[in-house]
Amino acid sequence: MAVYTEVSVEDLNAFLRPYDLGAIKSFRGIAEGVENSNYVLETERGRYILTLYEKRVREDDLPFFLGLMEHLQKRGINCPQPVRARDGQILHVLSGRPAAIVTFLDGVSYRRPSVAHCAELGRVLAELHVAGADYAIRRANALSLQGWRPLYAQTGGRGDEVAPGLERLITDELGELETRWPGDLPAGVIHADLFPNNVLFLGDRLTGVIDFYFACNDAYAYDLAICLNAWCFESDFAFNLTKGKALIAAYQTIRRLEDREVEALPLLCRGSALRFLLTRLVDYLNVPPGALVRPLDPREYMKRLRFHRGVKDASAYGLAP
Amino acid sequence: MAVYTEVSVEDLNAFLRPYDLGAIKSFRGIAEGVENSNYVLETERGRYILTLYEKRVREDDLPFFLGLMEHLQKRGINCPQPVRARDGQILHVLSGRPAAIVTFLDGVSYRRPSVAHCAELGRVLAELHVAGADYAIRRANALSLQGWRPLYAQTGGRGDEVAPGLERLITDELGELETRWPGDLPAGVIHADLFPNNVLFLGDRLTGVIDFYFACNDAYAYDLAICLNAWCFESDFAFNLTKGKALIAAYQTIRRLEDREVEALPLLCRGSALRFLLTRLVDYLNVPPGALVRPLDPREYMKRLRFHRGVKDASAYGLAP
Repeated sequence: MAVYTEVSVEDLNAFLRPYDLGAIKSFRGIAEGVENSNYVLETERGRYILTLYEKRVREDDLPFFLGLMEHLQKRGINCPQPVRARDGQILHVLSGRPAAIVTFLDGVSYRRPSVAHCAELGRVLAELHVAGADYAIRRANALSLQGWRPLYAQTGGRGDEVAPGLERLITDELGELETRWPGDLPAGVIHADLFPNNVLFLGDRLTGVIDFYFACNDAYAYDLAICLNAWCFESDFAFNLTKGKALIAAYQTIRRLEDREVEALPLLCRGSALRFLLTRLVDYLNVPPGALVRPLDPREYMKRLRFHRGVKDASAYGLAP
Repeated sequence: MAVYTEVSVEDLNAFLRPYDLGAIKSFRGIAEGVENSNYVLETERGRYILTLYEKRVREDDLPFFLGLMEHLQKRGINCPQPVRARDGQILHVLSGRPAAIVTFLDGVSYRRPSVAHCAELGRVLAELHVAGADYAIRRANALSLQGWRPLYAQTGGRGDEVAPGLERLITDELGELETRWPGDLPAGVIHADLFPNNVLFLGDRLTGVIDFYFACNDAYAYDLAICLNAWCFESDFAFNLTKGKALIAAYQTIRRLEDREVEALPLLCRGSALRFLLTRLVDYLNVPPGALVRPLDPREYMKRLRFHRGVKDASAYGLAP
């Protein structure tokens, strides 16, 4: 929730010279994104989001993310569209950072999505999986199984400082997932961070998907597991079966889950809960002095993980057995 | 540069029910204002700024600020206009805070204003002083002479931790200003915080004045002194005489300064430099852990104050002797 790099209008004017966007009408930093600096920019031509990529985003990955947004839009997924300068390029440098301009999408994010929102999400998630299938560039998921032990190492074994028993939970879970993680599921491009704040609605209608900066190639059902974690728990961390059912049923109207995906779902939910637990824990334990961002609470994912560890099969998420 | 109070769309929808603004099209927290939480809100009716007043703003003062914006607009000063709900009221409660909706103004703030910008500012500052003259409500300036010693007390005598010699500079200055501060200058409503980030331009044309949350009754020439401090120093803290001349000359095309105002100007510049030095120093020494705001550097105003202490008369600011 911060603007990490402040951009003056003077620098912005120079940055915009190679674009055909006309004069600036307004320009405001927005309190969004924990990874990048974002501004809403309005020019004579329209409204845009200007993003400065901060150091947590690898510059080499930017063509994958930006190209994906163009690819998906052509196949009917509404997402921000990169704006090319007259030189045909999307990426330029602003205030010492790689920066890009994308189109502004109307819509709002719901913090407490309804059942109807979950159904819309399920449908669009499957559409996104189908639309991304023929995307030519590939990007490994750095935050899947292979990434978790290095993340855990960054916590320095300090989990119990955050919650008693957390240390043990993580090491047990890591060991089990390393043994049992399914390696042969249907895979392709996934969003990998499709939290409610990255999905826009007008009323009950899903109008856009944003923030593709964790997108990668991985199992489709893992993306579904991320969404079950992010969309279907109530604020008391009880799983809402009605929401889970709605999400999965809508997903399957577009892309039917295979039996092995259904079978793997509880394990995928555990893995995705562990992934967010670990990244949050690293951030939580390493808040730099003077930080502009309040870290998210890792305990919320500890509770989700405990729920998934008690699950017998995918019927617990609303899938017909 | 932060959103202190996060507002969900769910809460916002409930808040908007007594307004005639139609459905929400977009809603984003903006990284602006060190005192309040601000959002850009777009509805079917148009674009607005939603402000949640945080604890540093006294709720009793809000009718003064909001009424002033309406008063000034009627007299030709372009500033955000409070939106009334169907009950005729401007202020309502959102997420436990007093909150108001005002109109969105086009325009951008220049971090390094040009001579032309300074001239525009001078003209509009004088227009604002003239337009506010018949505003019925009054509000004392809590951050003028009487407020400085209590502010200084809050620094706990720790000035030298920030810059060697600062402690001595402040106490000397306080003593001198308490003896010599001019008490009988032409006075009325002043903005009192007219920094470049509170003034909007489209190109060289000033299109709006925002953030009236320090406005109060005080000497007009004190407001001019605040602007000289905020607009006419270069990044090396040298006073730019061309900018000062342009600002003051443009001011005088609308409202001629009286001789006693001209004579008092160096002292008013010192007072206004001390005011921002003290508030910045208090914030700087009291950054709470986990703060979302990086404090402004008090030393910038120490340097300005030192400049003003060396000034003989108003000709140093570009006024004909």
